[in-house]
Formats: sequence, C-alpha cells, structure tokens
Amino acid sequence: MPDSLKLGLAGLGTVGAGVLRLIDTHADQIAARTGRPVEVLAISARNRNKKRDADTDSYRWVDDPIALAQDPEIDVFVELMGGEEGIPKEAVEAALKAGKHVVTANKALLAHHGVALAKLAEANNVALNFEAAVAGGIPVVKVMRESLQGNDITRVYGILNGTCNYILTLMQEEGATFEDALKDAQEKGFAEADPTFDIGGFDSAHKLALLTSLAFGVETAFDQIYVEGIDRIAAADIEAAERLGYRLKLLGVAAATESGIEQRVHPAMVAKHTPIAETFGAQNCVLIEGDFVEDVMLSGQGAGAGPTASAVMSDIIELARGHIFAPFATRAENLKPCRRSEMGIHAGSYYLRLTVHDQIGVIAGIATRMAEQNISLESIVQHRQRTDIPGVDDGEEPTGPVDVVMITHETTEAAIQKALAAIEGDGHVVAKPQMIRIESL
Amino acid sequence: MPDSLKLGLAGLGTVGAGVLRLIDTHADQIAARTGRPVEVLAISARNRNKKRDADTDSYRWVDDPIALAQDPEIDVFVELMGGEEGIPKEAVEAALKAGKHVVTANKALLAHHGVALAKLAEANNVALNFEAAVAGGIPVVKVMRESLQGNDITRVYGILNGTCNYILTLMQEEGATFEDALKDAQEKGFAEADPTFDIGGFDSAHKLALLTSLAFGVETAFDQIYVEGIDRIAAADIEAAERLGYRLKLLGVAAATESGIEQRVHPAMVAKHTPIAETFGAQNCVLIEGDFVEDVMLSGQGAGAGPTASAVMSDIIELARGHIFAPFATRAENLKPCRRSEMGIHAGSYYLRLTVHDQIGVIAGIATRMAEQNISLESIVQHRQRTDIPGVDDGEEPTGPVDVVMITHETTEAAIQKALAAIEGDGHVVAKPQMIRIESL
Repeated sequence: MPDSLKLGLAGLGTVGAGVLRLIDTHADQIAARTGRPVEVLAISARNRNKKRDADTDSYRWVDDPIALAQDPEIDVFVELMGGEEGIPKEAVEAALKAGKHVVTANKALLAHHGVALAKLAEANNVALNFEAAVAGGIPVVKVMRESLQGNDITRVYGILNGTCNYILTLMQEEGATFEDALKDAQEKGFAEADPTFDIGGFDSAHKLALLTSLAFGVETAFDQIYVEGIDRIAAADIEAAERLGYRLKLLGVAAATESGIEQRVHPAMVAKHTPIAETFGAQNCVLIEGDFVEDVMLSGQGAGAGPTASAVMSDIIELARGHIFAPFATRAENLKPCRRSEMGIHAGSYYLRLTVHDQIGVIAGIATRMAEQNISLESIVQHRQRTDIPGVDDGEEPTGPVDVVMITHETTEAAIQKALAAIEGDGHVVAKPQMIRIESL
Repeated sequence: MPDSLKLGLAGLGTVGAGVLRLIDTHADQIAARTGRPVEVLAISARNRNKKRDADTDSYRWVDDPIALAQDPEIDVFVELMGGEEGIPKEAVEAALKAGKHVVTANKALLAHHGVALAKLAEANNVALNFEAAVAGGIPVVKVMRESLQGNDITRVYGILNGTCNYILTLMQEEGATFEDALKDAQEKGFAEADPTFDIGGFDSAHKLALLTSLAFGVETAFDQIYVEGIDRIAAADIEAAERLGYRLKLLGVAAATESGIEQRVHPAMVAKHTPIAETFGAQNCVLIEGDFVEDVMLSGQGAGAGPTASAVMSDIIELARGHIFAPFATRAENLKPCRRSEMGIHAGSYYLRLTVHDQIGVIAGIATRMAEQNISLESIVQHRQRTDIPGVDDGEEPTGPVDVVMITHETTEAAIQKALAAIEGDGHVVAKPQMIRIESL
C-alpha cells in the first residue's frame, strides 16, 4: 500500500471535530476502499484547551494555521475555520502556493475569492475541493462537477439553508410567528445569536454563487445575487400559501435566461405535493435541470457534524484516489464572466397580499393599477379582518383593514414593482404590501 | 489538447441514439470541460437500416459487436445492447480483455456477472462504468462509489422502476384498476408488450443487486433477493393506503441487519408527506442512509433517452478525465460474500386486507390468530362491502363479504405468514389475503 495521505486540519468546531471522529471511526475501511490510508497529522484551532467532541490529543498541535498550511509533512490542508477574509484566506493561499491540496467547507471564502483561488490551485496542480461548502452532506458539488457535465444546465435551485427551512416549517406546522420560530431555532442551536446571516439569505447566496459557477461555467459573482430574507414572512402568508396549494420556502435560484444569468435568493411559493415542498426542518434540497438529464433532485441534511464531515471526507477520498479536478469543473481561466440578468426582467407569477381598508372601490383601484401594468390575475380573494397588524386599529368590524390576496399570471418583476408602487401611492394599503414570487417547478 | 477519447458504441436503441445525439450536441463543451475531446468512432447494432432518432451515417459501421469491442482504434466500448447472456456478455468480456474501458447500461448483465466482470476489468487496469444501469439519469452510482465512501451504509432503498411507479400513480390519482393502468402504460410506451420484467419486480431487483454491492462492499447476489411484483395491488389497497396516511410504491430495499443483508423488492406503504411518497409517474428515487451522512435522497428520471444518455456520458467523461475506479468501489477481490438475512426474520409493520364473510366471530377469530403469533394490532377497520371481487356474490347486504383492514405493530415476516396461513385455514377469508409491508422511513 502506498504512503498515507497526510492531513493538516485547521478549525475544530462542530465540523472539524466531526471529521476527526469520522477518520477515527472509519480509517481502516477508507484505506481498504481507496487503497491508500488517510491520516490526520496535525491540527490547529484558536483555543487549544476548549473541550471538544473528539479526541485531539493524538495529533500534533500547531498554533498558527498558516504555518500548518505550509507544513512540509502534510499533503492536504483541511480548512474548517470559516470566514471570508483574514487568516482562513491567507492559510488557503499559503497551502495552495506550497503545493498542498485544499479541502474546505468555507462557502463565504469561495463565493468571494473562489475564482482567484481556483487559478492558484490550478497553477500549482493541486485540488481545491469544497463539497462541504454547499448543502452539507448532499453531494451536489460532485454531481454538478462530474455527473451532469454532459448537459447544458438551465436552472439550479433549492433550499440551501437549514435554519430558514426549520423556521418556515415551524411556522407552517405549528402556526408560530416568525419571531417565535426564530427563538425556538436559537434555543435548539439551529440559529446563531445574531441570525442575520442565515435569515437574511446571505448564507444561501454564498452557496448559490458556487452552484451558479458550477452550473454555467461562469465566474462566481456574489455581488450580482438578488438577496431577500425570510424576516417579513407572516403567519398570514403561510396560511394563504397552504390554502392556495403552495408551501413557502427560502429558495436560492440560478437560471440561464436569454438576457443572462439570473441569481436570486428569496422566499418563494412552491407547489404542494412535490419533493421540494416536502423538504422539512433543517433538511436542504437542490434541483438541477439540464437539457438531457431533464431534472435531478438531491436532498439531505444541510448541516451538522456528521453530514458535513461525510462531505469533507468525500473530498479527501477523491485525493486519496489520486483524482484532481478543476475546482469549478472547467479550468478557471476558461470560466466566462457572469452576465447578469437584471431582476426587473425576471418573469414569473406572484403572490401579493395587500392589507387595505375595507371600502368600496379599493379592489377596483388595485385591479386598475395591475391592469395598467398588463398584469392579469389568476385569483383575487379578500380575507377576513386581520388582528395581527401592530398599530392598526381593527376594532370596527365593517371598516377595519382586510387582506386582499392575489395570484398573478406570469408577468415581470418590473411590472409588479410599478403596480405596487402605484397602489401604495393611491393610499389604499395600510401596511407595506407583501410580495412573494412563485417558483414554477 | 491530447488525442480524443475514441468510442465504439454497440446498441442503437433509445439510449444509444440518445448518446449519439448528446455527443453531437455537446462535443465542444465536453472537450472544453474535460480537456479531452470525445469522439464516436464506430457503431454497431442488429439492424443497420432501421430508422433511428440520430444521425448514424457519419460513423464507421461494424456488424459484429464483438469485433467492435476489440477494435484496435477504440479506447472505450459503450455497450447499450442489454441482456444478461450471449453477445452483450461476450462483447464486454472481449473489450475488457483487449484493454478497453467499458461503459454499459446493462443492469441484467451486471446483476448476474458483475463481480466476474469487475475482476476482469481490474486485472486489465480498465474501467467498467455503469451509472446508467441504475435509475436512469440519477447519479446514484457515482454518489455511492465516491461521495458516501466515508460512511457505513445501513440501508439503501427507493423507487427503481418507472413503469411500476407510473402504474401505481395512475391507480392512485385516477382510481384506475391495475389492469387499466397497465394498459395505459403500454399505450404510452412506458411498459413493454410483455410487462412481466417490470411489474414482476425483476428490473428493480437487478438494480438493487448493484446498489447492495456498492453499499455494503459485498458481491452481487441477485438470487438472494426476495422479489414480489405489483400485479396483486387492488384499487382497495390504494384507497386504504390513502386513508391510513400512506402511499403505495414498489420499493427495492437493501439493509444491513444483525443477521446479514436483507434484499427485497415488493410493494410497500410509505408515509405520505415525504419526498419518496411524492415521487410520481415515471420518476425514480433512491435514499441512502449512512452513519455520518444520516440520509441522502436522489430523484429524477429513471429512464428515457436523454436522462440515460446523460448518465452514460458521465461515465465517459470520467474516462476522458483519466479517472478509473474499481467498479464496485472496493476491488472486486476484496468484496465479501453477501450473507443473506432470510425474509422470515424481516422485522416491520404490516398492512393486511382480508376479505371475509360478515359474520359474528370472524374478527375475533382473526384477532386470536394474530395474538397467537404475538402480533399486536395498531388498528383494525372493517370496510363496506366490496363489489369488485370476481366470482363473489355480494348481493345480500348483511352476509356479503367485507374487507377487514389491519395495521400491525412491528412484528416479523414469519409471524405474519403463520398468522395468515392459520386465518386462511379457518375458512373465514373468501379471497387470498392481501399483505403489504410498511417501510419505515
């Protein structure tokens, strides 16, 4: 049997500890399967004395992750620190320059600097593997980088953030408000104390940037992603979705359109009785559409020590077998610039919920504004008075505010925005209109 | 750029024509992505003059597939003829012996001779790739062979036959009888004139044999698979499943148990509101459970020219990139014999539907027979008189036959079989009892 593949592992949080446990548990099996033993040689983390969910005593400790990255004894630098700038970036660069393969779960780093790092990896004939950076245990990077390479991909989309899906599931199943569901997620450890990164859609956007590059052979373009979080989703929207035959999910969507590549993260309605609609809790799922394969869906645990360690290990096993890929499937110098399709020309159907005074002429006024933008309505339903609008006095039965819920036929984002602005200008609405895109599956 | 990877393609049915179309459409893109052009050099099929859905004039024609397999000019023999013995087998053997890589979609061949062929491939340092043999466009072979190698797999299961799923979907959605749904599937081209192979579960069993080997590192053992088809499923079962919160699917299941490996193909009840329950029509899905990854699900088109061609192409691209794997992930000589767990010790819950005379004491008699086998019942419901039992006179209201539907708590297959035999022996049932296993997800 050849020499072992020697790893230097920086970052010993949940995922790092999971990787140590996995290697500890399955070292023999991995050696038998790949024909080459895999061995952790040295480790590094910010705090050496922190109690961890893995045995760390048997490995050489290195205080400086950048020194570890260049350690002459290691073959692979496993970066599990996270963070888009600073030490993780410097360490990954140092490793690649020193001719070490890099395996990382760092989506922020790659979404921002992936192309430059891929060029560096390719220049040094080493790998930059990042299966664990997208959708945890779901092997979507390998599937896109290899299995679907015979296709023109037309769209890739899915549920890319388990925290948001957990919150939306709780709102749907238990009728919780967004605030209560978020609190529950925080108590259960699914959401950070500062949850902005997850619920604001930025974590999904990082992952989407990587999927976009893999799908369309373009440079990552995080700044081109339209990002909208789930914090404005109300119980009323979840209920209305249910009635209308939809489920509410935070989606990341990248699609090839005639005017360029559309990248967007936002809450969306998806049809019930579909696998994506039945993806609950902290699960993730990714759907990929190609000209030959038609559609493929992958789902599984989007985070957590075990699933993410499985993904990291998949990248390491690839190296133990001696296989090196261009990080973004195509050599980085051949990636095309990402031509952005502006959000205004996004075409689709929309769900709108307008809270209005229950007065004669209001619906007519709204319908007129929609017609002015050539928006045709599939349905318009006026719902019973709401009681959950802070600051709105809804005590007087006949004149209190009501929710008007509309589903449009296909139109454009620009048309919807203009219509909503006009409706707001007319003074009929008593709260900011709610607009949620419907994703056709 | 290096020399092109030269293919010899035998078999020009739906899939073969699809592969030619795919290469024709995407040759430039594939060369750019892999760094090596892929080129079809010669083709072979039974009938040269048949009209086909692809341009075949631009390739050298070879009458004898075995000659093509050994053609000194080709690097890869693409076997898309199908069939477990005879020419396809000889051609694959000839190719491997001649040092050619083989890419095949032939599940029957591999289920029966996979290990011997894998040894031959390994002895000749060539690949034997078969992504297209399991679940069409779904990249499950790659995911198991590579992505999940860091795991101990505990169970792999799914919907592996689109024809059966199409029939069951039609029965569920339109209340069709099995016979009518089968006829519809045949008219639409989803089922063969002789449908035994699909509806009898044998096609699913071939695929399951390959998944079992990949999952557990064991030799394929097609003969150990318990196989039961969908031809005894009645509309009454579909309705009862719906009422009880289940959907009926034909599953292939391989699980590691204490007593060995359980391999079974049979209709099963799966809980509603899960992705597998929402897999409709000709779609396939595969779920894999591992100790670290927890669970991963893949779904997509299980057949058809485009999806299957995408899978074949994935295998070819792997070769263009110079990557060669042991066909069953572990070298064939290291695969362990498959230790069978007998069906009698299968543990699970069961759905039973007994058509009985509506007489005092019948239910008590049935319940006694269940109790004798230590089977506890979760529910027992007596349904209104059936009118669809051929040869049964159900005209007399109070004494006509009724359906008794039971759901058991977890028990064993042996206990259920004994209880059913005793109940039949008691003479209470007027038709063969229906027994459907419930698969816990």
